[in-house]
Amino acid sequence: MRTQILELHTGGSESITDITRECGDFVARTGGDGLLNVFVPHSTAGVAIIELGSGSDDDLLATLDDLLPADDRWRHRHGSPGHGRSHVMPALIPPQTTVPVLGGELGLGTWQSIAVVDLNVDNPDRRVRLSFLTSS
Amino acid sequence: MRTQILELHTGGSESITDITRECGDFVARTGGDGLLNVFVPHSTAGVAIIELGSGSDDDLLATLDDLLPADDRWRHRHGSPGHGRSHVMPALIPPQTTVPVLGGELGLGTWQSIAVVDLNVDNPDRRVRLSFLTSS
Amino acid sequence: MRTQILELHTGGSESITDITRECGDFVARTGGDGLLNVFVPHSTAGVAIIELGSGSDDDLLATLDDLLPADDRWRHRHGSPGHGRSHVMPALIPPQTTVPVLGGELGLGTWQSIAVVDLNVDNPDRRVRLSFLTSS
Repeated sequence: MRTQILELHTGGSESITDITRECGDFVARTGGDGLLNVFVPHSTAGVAIIELGSGSDDDLLATLDDLLPADDRWRHRHGSPGHGRSHVMPALIPPQTTVPVLGGELGLGTWQSIAVVDLNVDNPDRRVRLSFLTSS
Repeated sequence: MRTQILELHTGGSESITDITRECGDFVARTGGDGLLNVFVPHSTAGVAIIELGSGSDDDLLATLDDLLPADDRWRHRHGSPGHGRSHVMPALIPPQTTVPVLGGELGLGTWQSIAVVDLNVDNPDRRVRLSFLTSS
Repeated sequence: MRTQILELHTGGSESITDITRECGDFVARTGGDGLLNVFVPHSTAGVAIIELGSGSDDDLLATLDDLLPADDRWRHRHGSPGHGRSHVMPALIPPQTTVPVLGGELGLGTWQSIAVVDLNVDNPDRRVRLSFLTSS
């Protein structure tokens, strides 16, 4: 298994960060077939495979505002108002995904991107671990 | 790693399609122990492991109607009304899952089925990539 | 691939059960690098990677009460009132997760725990399958 840490600057606002290119470059360096695991070692971020750039980023953030409102309902309180929602989010948008790799290329569909979803406005920097497990 | 594309006809309405048998047949042909990755290369479909056939299919579709209403709130607009919800769905129901395989058999529980969830009424045909990574 | 069943007593109320230590012990016995798959072979339980113990457990259960109310809306009816919600939950909180392992240690972040989420009050005992696939 080959593994590597990716450093991301997600900034101080809710964000959806496209890491498809970095994932593609990572598996291309090894080549071959296998499974790519994308894992965010943070308790307030998730990994989603969605289409980006046609309004769906905003649609996802609006949905998360609706399902996990940034109000004072949360027992987990510290940092910015509504921060507790960020700790529930990874139960719904898990911090990991696994993608098949064929001949050194990600097996994504035409419109799919791999993205880090982060509602947390208090952590501007994030790490992502990429791990590529190949057969033989 | 052995990999194969499965072709599905999901039709022109919201659908939950059972692919458990196809997944089981696929891993049985190789046998042995490993991990089966089930991946849908589409930006408007997801993979769920749930019990099917006792009303839960309808319960899941009703829940998705509730959480992601088919109305005009979505910024991503084209195709059928409410289509934007289908682009958010894979953030909540990811397009992939990974299942342990023991002695060529899926490690599912008695009531678990592997299903493709598809709210998109504009794409009647779908592909699923099955990838079985074994320990040598 | 090394695999093992973990037996859990989740009791007769909604529960979030920390299995991080058991997962860590399991991969430490093999050592090396690879992917750990955590799989619950039950149709009414899920696996989440979240921070535990600062109110987030209660926040998650409250969110699930909100998104999947324990009322009489569910078509899947048997057992305790609202039981049908437990059959939809694994579509949102999948029964599996995959975690990278480096040198026999889980690649979790400081605040991340691996937990079994179980709203089902009728099944007090649960099994979890741990499977560790290493590069040879």
